[in-house]
Amino acid sequence: MNPVKSKLNFASDYTKGAHPAVLSRLVATNLEETPGYGQDAYCEEARDLIRRACACPGARVEFLVGGTQTNETVISSVLRPYQGVIAAETGHIATHEAGAIEAGGHKVLTLPQHAGKLDAGEVRRFLQDFFGDDNHEHMVMPGMVYISHPTEYGTLYTKEELCALRAVCDEYRLPLYLDGARLAYALACPDSDVTLPDLARLCDVFYIGGTKCGALFGEAVVMPDPALIPGFFTLIKQHGALLAKGRLLGLQFGALFTDGLYEKIGEPAVRAADTLRRALVQKGYALCFGSPTNQVFCLVENRKLAEVGRSVEYSFWEKADDDHTVIRFATDWATTEEDIRALTGLL
Amino acid sequence: MNPVKSKLNFASDYTKGAHPAVLSRLVATNLEETPGYGQDAYCEEARDLIRRACACPGARVEFLVGGTQTNETVISSVLRPYQGVIAAETGHIATHEAGAIEAGGHKVLTLPQHAGKLDAGEVRRFLQDFFGDDNHEHMVMPGMVYISHPTEYGTLYTKEELCALRAVCDEYRLPLYLDGARLAYALACPDSDVTLPDLARLCDVFYIGGTKCGALFGEAVVMPDPALIPGFFTLIKQHGALLAKGRLLGLQFGALFTDGLYEKIGEPAVRAADTLRRALVQKGYALCFGSPTNQVFCLVENRKLAEVGRSVEYSFWEKADDDHTVIRFATDWATTEEDIRALTGLL
Amino acid sequence: MNPVKSKLNFASDYTKGAHPAVLSRLVATNLEETPGYGQDAYCEEARDLIRRACACPGARVEFLVGGTQTNETVISSVLRPYQGVIAAETGHIATHEAGAIEAGGHKVLTLPQHAGKLDAGEVRRFLQDFFGDDNHEHMVMPGMVYISHPTEYGTLYTKEELCALRAVCDEYRLPLYLDGARLAYALACPDSDVTLPDLARLCDVFYIGGTKCGALFGEAVVMPDPALIPGFFTLIKQHGALLAKGRLLGLQFGALFTDGLYEKIGEPAVRAADTLRRALVQKGYALCFGSPTNQVFCLVENRKLAEVGRSVEYSFWEKADDDHTVIRFATDWATTEEDIRALTGLL
Amino acid sequence: MNPVKSKLNFASDYTKGAHPAVLSRLVATNLEETPGYGQDAYCEEARDLIRRACACPGARVEFLVGGTQTNETVISSVLRPYQGVIAAETGHIATHEAGAIEAGGHKVLTLPQHAGKLDAGEVRRFLQDFFGDDNHEHMVMPGMVYISHPTEYGTLYTKEELCALRAVCDEYRLPLYLDGARLAYALACPDSDVTLPDLARLCDVFYIGGTKCGALFGEAVVMPDPALIPGFFTLIKQHGALLAKGRLLGLQFGALFTDGLYEKIGEPAVRAADTLRRALVQKGYALCFGSPTNQVFCLVENRKLAEVGRSVEYSFWEKADDDHTVIRFATDWATTEEDIRALTGLL
Repeated sequence: MNPVKSKLNFASDYTKGAHPAVLSRLVATNLEETPGYGQDAYCEEARDLIRRACACPGARVEFLVGGTQTNETVISSVLRPYQGVIAAETGHIATHEAGAIEAGGHKVLTLPQHAGKLDAGEVRRFLQDFFGDDNHEHMVMPGMVYISHPTEYGTLYTKEELCALRAVCDEYRLPLYLDGARLAYALACPDSDVTLPDLARLCDVFYIGGTKCGALFGEAVVMPDPALIPGFFTLIKQHGALLAKGRLLGLQFGALFTDGLYEKIGEPAVRAADTLRRALVQKGYALCFGSPTNQVFCLVENRKLAEVGRSVEYSFWEKADDDHTVIRFATDWATTEEDIRALTGLL
Repeated sequence: MNPVKSKLNFASDYTKGAHPAVLSRLVATNLEETPGYGQDAYCEEARDLIRRACACPGARVEFLVGGTQTNETVISSVLRPYQGVIAAETGHIATHEAGAIEAGGHKVLTLPQHAGKLDAGEVRRFLQDFFGDDNHEHMVMPGMVYISHPTEYGTLYTKEELCALRAVCDEYRLPLYLDGARLAYALACPDSDVTLPDLARLCDVFYIGGTKCGALFGEAVVMPDPALIPGFFTLIKQHGALLAKGRLLGLQFGALFTDGLYEKIGEPAVRAADTLRRALVQKGYALCFGSPTNQVFCLVENRKLAEVGRSVEYSFWEKADDDHTVIRFATDWATTEEDIRALTGLL
Repeated sequence: MNPVKSKLNFASDYTKGAHPAVLSRLVATNLEETPGYGQDAYCEEARDLIRRACACPGARVEFLVGGTQTNETVISSVLRPYQGVIAAETGHIATHEAGAIEAGGHKVLTLPQHAGKLDAGEVRRFLQDFFGDDNHEHMVMPGMVYISHPTEYGTLYTKEELCALRAVCDEYRLPLYLDGARLAYALACPDSDVTLPDLARLCDVFYIGGTKCGALFGEAVVMPDPALIPGFFTLIKQHGALLAKGRLLGLQFGALFTDGLYEKIGEPAVRAADTLRRALVQKGYALCFGSPTNQVFCLVENRKLAEVGRSVEYSFWEKADDDHTVIRFATDWATTEEDIRALTGLL
Repeated sequence: MNPVKSKLNFASDYTKGAHPAVLSRLVATNLEETPGYGQDAYCEEARDLIRRACACPGARVEFLVGGTQTNETVISSVLRPYQGVIAAETGHIATHEAGAIEAGGHKVLTLPQHAGKLDAGEVRRFLQDFFGDDNHEHMVMPGMVYISHPTEYGTLYTKEELCALRAVCDEYRLPLYLDGARLAYALACPDSDVTLPDLARLCDVFYIGGTKCGALFGEAVVMPDPALIPGFFTLIKQHGALLAKGRLLGLQFGALFTDGLYEKIGEPAVRAADTLRRALVQKGYALCFGSPTNQVFCLVENRKLAEVGRSVEYSFWEKADDDHTVIRFATDWATTEEDIRALTGLL
């Protein structure tokens, strides 16, 4: 079978395999023998590299396979059974994880989104109202705050916004959890002032996305306080999230964190997305949500859309009105300027 | 970092990477662009190849990442909330999956093992007793039978034994589920009379193990009746078991089911294990459990064991008495006769 | 200890014990010996009486102890693990059941409320949008519709509104579940055109509330199709909802369904509430939500409220603005005109 | 309907209603108005009486409705999600609670029973073996010890045995939980040396059974360390275990703990059981399990059993051999010497 690349593909950032540096490492070590379950030297090495990149030498780092799995394992492990997790109404856990958080016994407590983000002030008011309600012991107690960075709309928290959320979390003693499925594209964003050490300082737990950022698969959970989740290894196993050949994760993250690759890997994607955004504006399309990262959202007339769809894969996002649709183009670490030229030529 | 192969490694069958045919396919297709979540042409191709190998053209085939994940997703999806799953007391789900079945809300109903296997007659008596008990509506109703093949002791069901279990399952209308984490090593066993088409005929659902049988990771769930689990795709997602780059599974299983590779891939492992068993007997070691597959269990004096442990990685199995231990050597698809000679030289 | 009735109590409809007809039956039969777990003759009798009152001779009727328990047991028993339940954002299961539905593994899918009610058209649009979304297999599938009648705002569905919901449920093959915690106060409402036989015809499952309607405790689940929930007895037990001395429930519902008591028992409450509503309006208070049943909601100036609170127990409902609060007065089957006079004298 | 007492009834200890002192209190207070959910003065009074009876002034006391509900709420609230509960293989939670513990996500880790009891030495060995197993992080970690007193066989722990279990629990920092569904019959046993203050000193949490010991229903959970379960009120609600008219529980336990009623209420039952045991032995029946409490187990020839069954309700316990059956007669707080004479006359 030989699938021919018949169309330009901007449908998502997980349509390709791995960055060459990642893949070649898997190939080079293929017949080596290592212990399983993440207990091997490659995982240890990757953990060290990540701790160093986060300037957090005491952090616990564990590798899981995918994003939904990571979210459900971390969240259900941190929450007590009477607690729920606060998230923006557009948060991935609230929408596109097939109810994984609820399947683990916990409510997702949604708040309004602002360009995909939670607002610290609104979180505080929600918590004030909750604890001020005489009936709050009959209700699900907020036990954690979930944010994604970049968000589902490709937007980014500023350091100031993260600090404001951290302050609310401190007031109410809530762990702050950041879903970094696309974190490389945030780090590569010239206007973003949030670094890995910032995340390690401001979050109680976050994950560094591999699947969408150059790995075949894999997410690295970072817990600055290694005691945050007692029994975490067993919980990873229980959630079916413990890879037998754990070294595959160590090898990939080792490659991604060698010579600062992870912090640079998103640059071509963001540059390509910027080029695309400029071209779209020039051609009269309206951009949506204000994403500065590798996801480009724009408004397209439905008639035009049918035409575009014949030669480009994109993602349907939402119906805007009877005649217009919001669509998404996603670039990735392997997107070239040539791909963008080809795409803009069609728009 | 350069791990030196300082020791012979017979600790398990998942210490290495992938079979070259599998790996080269991942490399060759690395920069191709495909849809995610198992909706790509490589997955479709692999599904077809598996259906053909199972002589079951109507089967539904889905790919998951690991064994515990597959067991918990399948079992909790098949059972109704008032039901439990029957398993041998040594069954993987009853022992080494960190309570994943219970975390999904279901009891594992254990019966005695016989060389790691369930006995059809005992299953029938258990069911008779259960439904004959006036209080059975206060108890967990058996809703499924779980077996592993090879078992955790490396032993195999005969076709006759599987037919007998099927007959009990038919009497009580229970689905029969077979965990084939090491299925390749069963299929490669010259004395085994059970084929893939037999499994498709006798089981309601089974999985073909990839992780321990030549893949980097991956398990293929086969359901002869595609309607067995409504909402299965969503359930896979909910359990965090849906790989974003699903094609990685399709590519690997496609390679394993091209030219009958999967049915042959275990042969070197079984041959090596047979050689090792003969050598052990010759040297006066007692073999345990009667495994004819790639797992070799034997009784070793503790003094001897300390010596062996200096140059060979093996698995501790259980304490036999104060002076002896049962240990396991596992061979795999890449084990050579030379590896075995080196090992037997040390025993 | 002798609690003195120092204050008028309109805080809720579960402040008192049982209707005399209920209590006297418990006393009269106290030393009789019956089998446990609802298998006794009193439960059978009560089931028959309820089937007759519902004009549904084939219905299955089971007795549980409380409302949250009933909701979580029924809902988690009806839903498949990939499904959630649609409810108004003010629905009891969405707000004040401490996450019991989520603890059972299911998401509550909230829609806007209109005077506490779901709108059939909005439910249809939600379902259309859901199944029209390409990503819906990554989302929680709606598997049931939950309504309360009276609602949490004391309002009532008309027969037409229920028929409209039924039609949507039929289109999408969703079970319709009605929470009748306060059902007696709906049946006693002169303007309501919904009868018990209507509910049996229009719902797949509903419960007839006892706790707030004259019983000490107890809710009667009615399933017109007795096969709706396989294993229901075992599920009741598993949820800790099976009363050992089940006859207590049979005795109480037997009393409530003798001589049509249940359908009349709410009349004094509704009459009293009507009187109170008229008095409030006369005194210049604004009523809220339009409740015609035993719950009376009104807007009170905060200064006035402090004064009222010294001599009357009421329920805080919500802050209206900085100077006003919505409060609730609840009447019950035992509220007298004299109680209302005393209350209105204080307002 | 007027059920005629046609047969002697020794089927169980929950065939009747409530002790007169309990019932009359419910009647006397029926029309009083109190807050709901256990926040009333009657509950406070009962809590105080129980604290005093347990000589444990700092204990937290909460009232739930039934035994399975109490077990699942307490156990799932104490355990972390990676932990299971140790119980005797005959423990109620392991057999007759319809999988409620597993439905809450936790495995019941069974050990052999000795006359229904756990042996402290065996618990210690189990824990040593568990933590000594290299794979224990892939297994369910023991997180609690569950015992019943009296056991399901009517037998009792001695104070020495409880102290031995406490010592093991201290070594491994496991909470010890005692299920006292029939505790009154233990306290009334002249040969038992275990008192309520002993339980408060030796257990981390236990419950004082009401349902089988003179109440209509209800169980009182006692936690000497009130901080044992954070969020316990919300968890009770979430499990559907929070009675709206909570005072019903307070009133009943208040009556049971006034003038030491609870500690005496089982005396007639134990005396009657002793009389019955002597009569059975005299008539040549073999007693089983050595129960000194209100449950009497004996071996009966099947032919004889058919005859007995025509005039007496008993409980089938288990088949002994092809010709004999173990049956149970249960006495209760209301059993008279006359009842026993009538019964022995028929044997």
